[in-house]
Amino acid sequence: MMNRIRVGVLGATGMVGQNYVRLLKDHPWFEVTYVAASPRSAGKTYAEAVQGRWLMPEPIPQAVKDLVVGDANDIEQAKDKCQMVFSAIEEDKDVVRRLEEAYAAADIPVVSNNSAHRATEDVPMIIPEVNWEHAALIDVQRRQRGWRRGLIAVKPNCSIQSYVTPIYALQQAGFPVDAIIVTTLQAVSGAGFPGPASFTMIDGVVPYIKAEEEKSEIEPLRVLGRLEGGRIINSDIKISAHCNRVPVIDGHMACVSLRFAKARPTIEQVLQIWKDFSSEPQRLRLPSAPIPAMIYRDEPDRPQPRMDRDAGKGMAITLGRLRPCKVFDIRFVGLSHNTIRGAAGGAILMAELLKAKGYF
Amino acid sequence: MMNRIRVGVLGATGMVGQNYVRLLKDHPWFEVTYVAASPRSAGKTYAEAVQGRWLMPEPIPQAVKDLVVGDANDIEQAKDKCQMVFSAIEEDKDVVRRLEEAYAAADIPVVSNNSAHRATEDVPMIIPEVNWEHAALIDVQRRQRGWRRGLIAVKPNCSIQSYVTPIYALQQAGFPVDAIIVTTLQAVSGAGFPGPASFTMIDGVVPYIKAEEEKSEIEPLRVLGRLEGGRIINSDIKISAHCNRVPVIDGHMACVSLRFAKARPTIEQVLQIWKDFSSEPQRLRLPSAPIPAMIYRDEPDRPQPRMDRDAGKGMAITLGRLRPCKVFDIRFVGLSHNTIRGAAGGAILMAELLKAKGYF
Amino acid sequence: MMNRIRVGVLGATGMVGQNYVRLLKDHPWFEVTYVAASPRSAGKTYAEAVQGRWLMPEPIPQAVKDLVVGDANDIEQAKDKCQMVFSAIEEDKDVVRRLEEAYAAADIPVVSNNSAHRATEDVPMIIPEVNWEHAALIDVQRRQRGWRRGLIAVKPNCSIQSYVTPIYALQQAGFPVDAIIVTTLQAVSGAGFPGPASFTMIDGVVPYIKAEEEKSEIEPLRVLGRLEGGRIINSDIKISAHCNRVPVIDGHMACVSLRFAKARPTIEQVLQIWKDFSSEPQRLRLPSAPIPAMIYRDEPDRPQPRMDRDAGKGMAITLGRLRPCKVFDIRFVGLSHNTIRGAAGGAILMAELLKAKGYF
Amino acid sequence: MMNRIRVGVLGATGMVGQNYVRLLKDHPWFEVTYVAASPRSAGKTYAEAVQGRWLMPEPIPQAVKDLVVGDANDIEQAKDKCQMVFSAIEEDKDVVRRLEEAYAAADIPVVSNNSAHRATEDVPMIIPEVNWEHAALIDVQRRQRGWRRGLIAVKPNCSIQSYVTPIYALQQAGFPVDAIIVTTLQAVSGAGFPGPASFTMIDGVVPYIKAEEEKSEIEPLRVLGRLEGGRIINSDIKISAHCNRVPVIDGHMACVSLRFAKARPTIEQVLQIWKDFSSEPQRLRLPSAPIPAMIYRDEPDRPQPRMDRDAGKGMAITLGRLRPCKVFDIRFVGLSHNTIRGAAGGAILMAELLKAKGYF
Repeated sequence: MMNRIRVGVLGATGMVGQNYVRLLKDHPWFEVTYVAASPRSAGKTYAEAVQGRWLMPEPIPQAVKDLVVGDANDIEQAKDKCQMVFSAIEEDKDVVRRLEEAYAAADIPVVSNNSAHRATEDVPMIIPEVNWEHAALIDVQRRQRGWRRGLIAVKPNCSIQSYVTPIYALQQAGFPVDAIIVTTLQAVSGAGFPGPASFTMIDGVVPYIKAEEEKSEIEPLRVLGRLEGGRIINSDIKISAHCNRVPVIDGHMACVSLRFAKARPTIEQVLQIWKDFSSEPQRLRLPSAPIPAMIYRDEPDRPQPRMDRDAGKGMAITLGRLRPCKVFDIRFVGLSHNTIRGAAGGAILMAELLKAKGYF
Repeated sequence: MMNRIRVGVLGATGMVGQNYVRLLKDHPWFEVTYVAASPRSAGKTYAEAVQGRWLMPEPIPQAVKDLVVGDANDIEQAKDKCQMVFSAIEEDKDVVRRLEEAYAAADIPVVSNNSAHRATEDVPMIIPEVNWEHAALIDVQRRQRGWRRGLIAVKPNCSIQSYVTPIYALQQAGFPVDAIIVTTLQAVSGAGFPGPASFTMIDGVVPYIKAEEEKSEIEPLRVLGRLEGGRIINSDIKISAHCNRVPVIDGHMACVSLRFAKARPTIEQVLQIWKDFSSEPQRLRLPSAPIPAMIYRDEPDRPQPRMDRDAGKGMAITLGRLRPCKVFDIRFVGLSHNTIRGAAGGAILMAELLKAKGYF
Repeated sequence: MMNRIRVGVLGATGMVGQNYVRLLKDHPWFEVTYVAASPRSAGKTYAEAVQGRWLMPEPIPQAVKDLVVGDANDIEQAKDKCQMVFSAIEEDKDVVRRLEEAYAAADIPVVSNNSAHRATEDVPMIIPEVNWEHAALIDVQRRQRGWRRGLIAVKPNCSIQSYVTPIYALQQAGFPVDAIIVTTLQAVSGAGFPGPASFTMIDGVVPYIKAEEEKSEIEPLRVLGRLEGGRIINSDIKISAHCNRVPVIDGHMACVSLRFAKARPTIEQVLQIWKDFSSEPQRLRLPSAPIPAMIYRDEPDRPQPRMDRDAGKGMAITLGRLRPCKVFDIRFVGLSHNTIRGAAGGAILMAELLKAKGYF
Repeated sequence: MMNRIRVGVLGATGMVGQNYVRLLKDHPWFEVTYVAASPRSAGKTYAEAVQGRWLMPEPIPQAVKDLVVGDANDIEQAKDKCQMVFSAIEEDKDVVRRLEEAYAAADIPVVSNNSAHRATEDVPMIIPEVNWEHAALIDVQRRQRGWRRGLIAVKPNCSIQSYVTPIYALQQAGFPVDAIIVTTLQAVSGAGFPGPASFTMIDGVVPYIKAEEEKSEIEPLRVLGRLEGGRIINSDIKISAHCNRVPVIDGHMACVSLRFAKARPTIEQVLQIWKDFSSEPQRLRLPSAPIPAMIYRDEPDRPQPRMDRDAGKGMAITLGRLRPCKVFDIRFVGLSHNTIRGAAGGAILMAELLKAKGYF
């Protein structure tokens, strides 16, 4: 193994933080050398800090267990201990924004799962298979803010992962999309821990997730937008999202009706486009890039969360039920693992992309 | 209590049949005097026939417990024992069609839950709040078939109950609907017993229910159609339905995006229309008619199946989350109890309507 | 309806408090005229105070909806508004103890669901079918504390309801019990709201409930004890309890292995004893007394929580699977509704008993 | 990789059969070269035969996908295609018994998951960590039946795996056990597919599994028995088992109260014995042997099925909640993966043991 980059995890004790710690175990490029959390946890070993709150099925990785948790506000310490950070801080958006900026200003690249900077004009929001080219916005960001090594890059919301990549694939193939109406069935882990009460979710589904429909409608526009003149010009696809919570542990599912803007491919063409799809992370053979990026299941009753969420180690998108739509043009179902592809895993893939592109 | 009509339940041992038996307990107009099932069950008492398969939370009604189960194919026996029948036979469509016709030909009115006759031209398919006027098709039916007292009337599929009535209310108020895209989250009881395996539904949702999307797209057109010249002219609303099975015991939920054909009401107007809505079953004070017919919940996270399915004794439609749609005009969530409003309860209400209108 | 006793509910906004409010709707003897909660809720109407937190399937009763919530610490106000209180306060045990005593000292009888006073020597802990005679301890309590109208009486933990009554029935019939080993499978509503996370309970069971095994082992001894010389002499039955949380909404189940102390009844005798069992609440025809008090199901796979919890309006104990034990003498399964019989409903039945016995 | 033994899987299309196929993928000693099922499936490729019924999260292994399914009754074909078979046939016990004997008589060793031969006097029933020495019964078996290469060896029921090994460890350490009362909470996959209906298991637990308590009480006696004079002398531990089905996908849990026969270890001693425990499969470094064989979790609320079932790749037993029992001596909770350790995985480990001991 080559000399790995020393990385830190901010908000390391929460559910997303734990996912970073677990997914980075044995990573070929990155090595967790630092974990930070709120002052309350600072000073304890990581094992102590998460005691009784470790939610992953595997045990805490040996290499992280005994790391002493730092205070996430203490940037100097982070600078000593690591070369870049993954941010999974759960705080007020303002606090997160300022803190992430402070890290970047201190020459520490920040790859973030938090929504605080998703609308910041010079911060790229990246799904590596879709808009890897937006990484170039970092040059603008550094110039404007006077950062040299520091940077902030964010990943979009977990709810959109299962439909943005297939849409992108169609657009790339010459079939621009005009509008989609999407209904999501989202797993409880998407709400962190403890998340929804079992009293609510046993024999129950909830047709509402706070602020989720807004994110699901707006963020794809930016991800599918184009970088022009140093800024992102949003896509003008029209999106309507209905977001539901369902009693599933992991795996967000989306039922999509889609209308094309101009040319309309046949069902066979759509299938072929998805099956052929491959993108920059696959070409670069990034360690976390799923190959294939998207899997189409022929069975009439797939994808299903428990059966398909772990495809491509939780990084692949699984599609199914492609058929004509009675109102729009086509319909399909998409599924992605919300705490892997939709959170820590997606951020790690983005960090791999930025590393491959020389941003740190 | 007045002299009640003696009714029979065909297919009385299955899940829908059991629901008839339980919902007709203490009914002011109808009295279950006959139960019939397959030859296998014939000759046993009802209690013996359902032993180990009684799925209702309440015990078997005393009055039905000791009835001797008849063979559903034995129409003469039914004629002796009852004046009309509720059909919940689970057989091949062809078999059901012929059997229901034989009952009707023998002067026994048939109110059916089965899908066999839903597309038969002279058989009315009725949601009493929506198309009670289609009952007049029975006159055509009797004339054409030479039936005097007999008749066949059917109820539509459980999946459409939560969105057809609110659409109808809007159309009645002067806002014709052009198109809807609807995604349903349907309870496991909709599949009868045993229905989906727990191995599939624990930590799982299934984006597919056999033949359900077809029913959900086609049946509303007939229910919302108009009776003209002795036949139903279907509505031309465009409907696209995505049907999902979710781990919920009872209660089908629907996420609806709706586009109006011409005039577009404001959100406030829609709300008012739904709150003011009342229809023939309410005006006639039919015993099973929920008052109000539709309930709008203001909370952002309602309706929810377990919390709202029993509204109006399982006969009311609960609505919520009305808001503008980013692609169409409005969006909302509807919920109805699939084994009450969507099955036995809906059929009983229809029978009450037919009785009130003098059809038996 | 006779002049009903005006009652207050302390802790009315929590889950148990809500259950009191719902179960007391249309009660023939009691009328909720007062609701109290923490200072935070005081001054709001009840409907405002529980907005977004009303967890019952039925709507808030009309008669309570607009009551102004009082501060539970303000005893003078309570005295104006009601004649006795049901306590469902969720606070530190010390706080609860002192507050309940202050109410009683102010001439307000307190019937409590809280565990604070369950070990207090002069406070009776009552399951009305089992130890109604312990009500006489109130005379001692009043004498010792100088209370005239005031009193405190408590109900035991929800986890023990399904096995204490059948044990009592056996002892009454001349078959004293020596030891039981019991494993409970308890519903999530037993933990209040929000209670266990859905992330924990979907595809999961938890072999631990804080402090539950202690209560399940100790409280039955007092309930099954005898009142002698002004105090309770505990039963000396040996009890070992394993308490598990399972993904069930309502209904605690218990698997019991039981050893008799002396004479051993046959299986048939045990069955007969349980079927014949009736007690003081049934004799007094108390409004909430289930008749029968215990139901034995012959099916091999019953009781089951969803199917049996509502027996006797949630107040009956359902038993099943009586068979010889390979290690002890007999084995059986018991089930009771934890938020009705095991909480508010059990307390209401106890209040009815105290009323019938003239304690207020 | 050395020359691997060519193995067949009988009943390869069922749930246990699929687990064999998946767990044997990349096995260092065994290679699946043959799959057989009922005549109905014979002639299809394995992929065709399980189409729409493949229940494993991973795809069908490439090496098995295109194998042509044989008729399990055709022993000659099996003889051509493989050197030993794993039996997961789901048929009448008599049919299974005869068929397994026919394979053995044809020189094909049979390692079986089926219960048909569990009580056959000369067939060893083995948990490799506990009674590996019973393998010697095969010598008796071969002598009596005149088999040279053939043999039948079976694994016991999935329900007992989590308590037999810890009991054995205590007995080995000098603390013979007199009696246990055990209550199991068992996963739905234990019933195969489809198994219990979701209508039953959502918001439900079932206090009954057909024939499971008998197996759970009798089989441990044989596994813990000693081989003497060519036959197994059963252990005389007294066992009472209450078996429940709970809404969990995989992982059987057991709540155990245990009484020692003579000396009583301290809690600390028990802990130490379990932590130190290692046995023949670990000493032989068998490929599927978990190291450690048993894991003790210190957290008060563990083991839990979803969190702990995959420990040791599903082959380790996870223990927790060791504490004194109020009636017996100690109490604890055990958990094991029912479809891995309790079924296919346990059988594979046994086959490894038999191979290592030279039985084929």
